[in-house]
Amino acid sequence: MAKSLKLENIPRTVHVRVDGSKVVFEYVDQRLLPGELRMCATSEWREVVDAIKSLAVRGAPAIGIAGASAIALWMGSLDVRGCWDSSSAMELAQVASEVAGARPTAVNLAWAVEKAKTQVETFVEEGISEIGSLCSRICSFINEMEREDESTNRAIGEHGASLLSEGTRVLTHCNAGSLATSFFGTALGVVYAAAEQGKIERVFADETRPVGQGARLTTWELSRAGVPVTLICDNMAASLMASGGVDAVVVGADRIAANGDTANKIGTLGVAVLAHEFGVPFYVAAPSSTIDLATKQGSEIEIEQRDPAEVLPTPMDGVDVWNPSFDVTPARYITRVITERGAFPPEELVGVFSEQ
Amino acid sequence: MAKSLKLENIPRTVHVRVDGSKVVFEYVDQRLLPGELRMCATSEWREVVDAIKSLAVRGAPAIGIAGASAIALWMGSLDVRGCWDSSSAMELAQVASEVAGARPTAVNLAWAVEKAKTQVETFVEEGISEIGSLCSRICSFINEMEREDESTNRAIGEHGASLLSEGTRVLTHCNAGSLATSFFGTALGVVYAAAEQGKIERVFADETRPVGQGARLTTWELSRAGVPVTLICDNMAASLMASGGVDAVVVGADRIAANGDTANKIGTLGVAVLAHEFGVPFYVAAPSSTIDLATKQGSEIEIEQRDPAEVLPTPMDGVDVWNPSFDVTPARYITRVITERGAFPPEELVGVFSEQ
Repeated sequence: MAKSLKLENIPRTVHVRVDGSKVVFEYVDQRLLPGELRMCATSEWREVVDAIKSLAVRGAPAIGIAGASAIALWMGSLDVRGCWDSSSAMELAQVASEVAGARPTAVNLAWAVEKAKTQVETFVEEGISEIGSLCSRICSFINEMEREDESTNRAIGEHGASLLSEGTRVLTHCNAGSLATSFFGTALGVVYAAAEQGKIERVFADETRPVGQGARLTTWELSRAGVPVTLICDNMAASLMASGGVDAVVVGADRIAANGDTANKIGTLGVAVLAHEFGVPFYVAAPSSTIDLATKQGSEIEIEQRDPAEVLPTPMDGVDVWNPSFDVTPARYITRVITERGAFPPEELVGVFSEQ
Repeated sequence: MAKSLKLENIPRTVHVRVDGSKVVFEYVDQRLLPGELRMCATSEWREVVDAIKSLAVRGAPAIGIAGASAIALWMGSLDVRGCWDSSSAMELAQVASEVAGARPTAVNLAWAVEKAKTQVETFVEEGISEIGSLCSRICSFINEMEREDESTNRAIGEHGASLLSEGTRVLTHCNAGSLATSFFGTALGVVYAAAEQGKIERVFADETRPVGQGARLTTWELSRAGVPVTLICDNMAASLMASGGVDAVVVGADRIAANGDTANKIGTLGVAVLAHEFGVPFYVAAPSSTIDLATKQGSEIEIEQRDPAEVLPTPMDGVDVWNPSFDVTPARYITRVITERGAFPPEELVGVFSEQ
C-alpha cells in the first residue's frame, strides 16, 4: 500500500515565460488526454481565452494561472520597445474583463486575472513603463503564483492527509488533480499526501459526464503517479457507498460562498447527499482563493450552462438537453473544507478567512 | 400540455410467430438506436440468447418474452415432422436453463422461460406430441404473453397516472419504456397514461451510463410518441431535484424482493436517495411477475457484473473498472410500487401478492 509515488510522471499543465521578445504560454491540451499528451505554446492571449472556454485548460486553479498569463501575453503583444500609456491602461481593463469572463463559475479565474492586472498597475505606478520590462516582471510575478499554487496544494495535502486513516478508499469526482492546478492538485493533492504516508488503498474516480474529467484525467494522472484507481460511472457511487466501499469523499471546488456552500463540477451535490446518507465524510479541498466571502450563499453563484452537444453530440428531434457545468452543495453536507491554512467545518470559514 | 400521443410511432420490439415450417423471432436491435431502427428476425434460439446478453434485446419484460421465444425457436429447430420424446424433454430442460441464465438479475427472464417450459410440458401431458403442432401452440401461448404484458402495462399506467397531478415533471432512469416490454412500457407506461390525461409537462431522462438506455432509448421513444423530453446526465439529477424541477420519479424494476427492496438499472439507488432527501415521491412501476417472494430481501439478489469495456472502451494501464449493471434500492426509499393490481407501499407487497 505504501507504494512510492511517481509524481514526476505528471506534466505541469500551465506555465508562462519570456522567450526573447515574446511572452509564451505553455499548456497541456487536456481535451486530448488520455490518448495524447500534447504540450501547446502560444503568444496570443485570445487563444488562451479560447483554451479556457473549450476546456483545453480546465480546473479552477489552472484557469487562474492561465487567465493571469493571458494578461502577460496581451502585454507581450504590445510593441516591446514602446512604453505604457493611458490607452494601454484602458485596453488592460478591457482585456482583463474579457479574460475573467471566459468562464463564470470558478472564482479563481477572476481572482487571478485581477491580481495580475493590479500588479501591472503597481509596476506602472512604481515608474516602470517600458513594455519589455513590464512583460518580464509580470511573467516573474505569475511564475511566483505558480509556485505558490503548488505550495498551497502541498499544504492542503498535508492537512487533508491528517484526516485520513490507513487503508482509506477515497471517492473523488471530476479532476481536482495536478492537471487542474499548477502542480500536485487539491483533492488529489490530499490523495498524494496521504499516499506518501501509505494511507491510500484505492481511489474510485467518478467518470464525470459529460466531459469525462474523471474518466480521462483523474484515471490518467493517478495511474501515472502509481496510485491504484478504479473508474466507475457517476451513477455507481451510490451502490459503492451503500456496500461500504468508500471511506472518504474528497472533491475540489470552483467557488465557496461565505456560508460554506460550494460550487463544484456537476454531480458533486449528488455525491455529497449520498455521502451524508451513507455516513461517509465529505471533504472539499481548495485553496483559500476559492473562498469568496463576497458571495453570501450558494444561490448567488452563477452556474455556467454549456453546449448541449457535450451531452448529445447528434441532436435528436424533440429532445432537449440540460447541461449545467456545476452544481452547489449546501454546507450542511460538507464535513470539512480543507485549505492551505487547515481543515475547517464550513460554518467556521467566514471567521477564519475574513481576518485575512 | 394535453398533446395527443403518437404511440403508433413506437415499434413493437419482440414478437414470435410461426412462418411455414419455421418459428421466427422478430426483434428490434436496440444497440443501434437511435441512429437506426433495424428489425431483425431469427430462427436460431442461441441467437436470442446472444441478443439478450449483448443488450440487443433488453428490458426485464422484453427479455422475458424473448427468453420464452427462444424455447419456441429451439422447438422449431427439431424435426417438425417428428414427435416429442424423452430426449426432447431432457434437451428442453437444458435449453431452458441456458436461456434463463443469459442474464441473472431480472426475475422476468427466468419466470417467462419457466412458464414456456411448463406449458410445453403441459401440452405434451395433454397428448400433443407432433413437433409442428407443439410449435404453433407454444407460439400462440407466447403471443398471449405478449398481449398480457401490454394489458398489464396499460393497467400499471392507469394506476400510476392516478398518483400524478396535472403539470407533472417526471424524472426517469434507464428505459422502462415500450421498448423494454411487449408494448407501452412500465415506468413510461405511467407517463403515457398520464400524458393521455394531459398531466405530463415534461420527462427528464437520465442518460444512464454506461450503455445509455436513457440517452438513446427513452429520448427516442418519448420524442416519437410526442412527449416533451429533456436529456440530462445521471449526475445532474441532484441539481435538478434540488431546484424543485422534479415532481415525481418513476422507474422500472428487474426484481422486487418480498420486503420491497428493488433491483433496477445501476444508478436507481442514487436517484432514490436524492428523491428521499429532496422530498420527491419515488415510484417503481413493474408487473407483479417482477415481485419475487422467494427473495426475502435485496441483499439476496445477484447483481450482474458486465464488461469493463462498456465503461472504458480503450483500456488504460493501471486503471481498473467496476461495472455492476444493477443496484438495489432499499424499500424505505420507495413511495409506492405500481403494479397492474394497484399501487402499494413496499411493505404491503408480501400481503397482497402472496395470496396469488
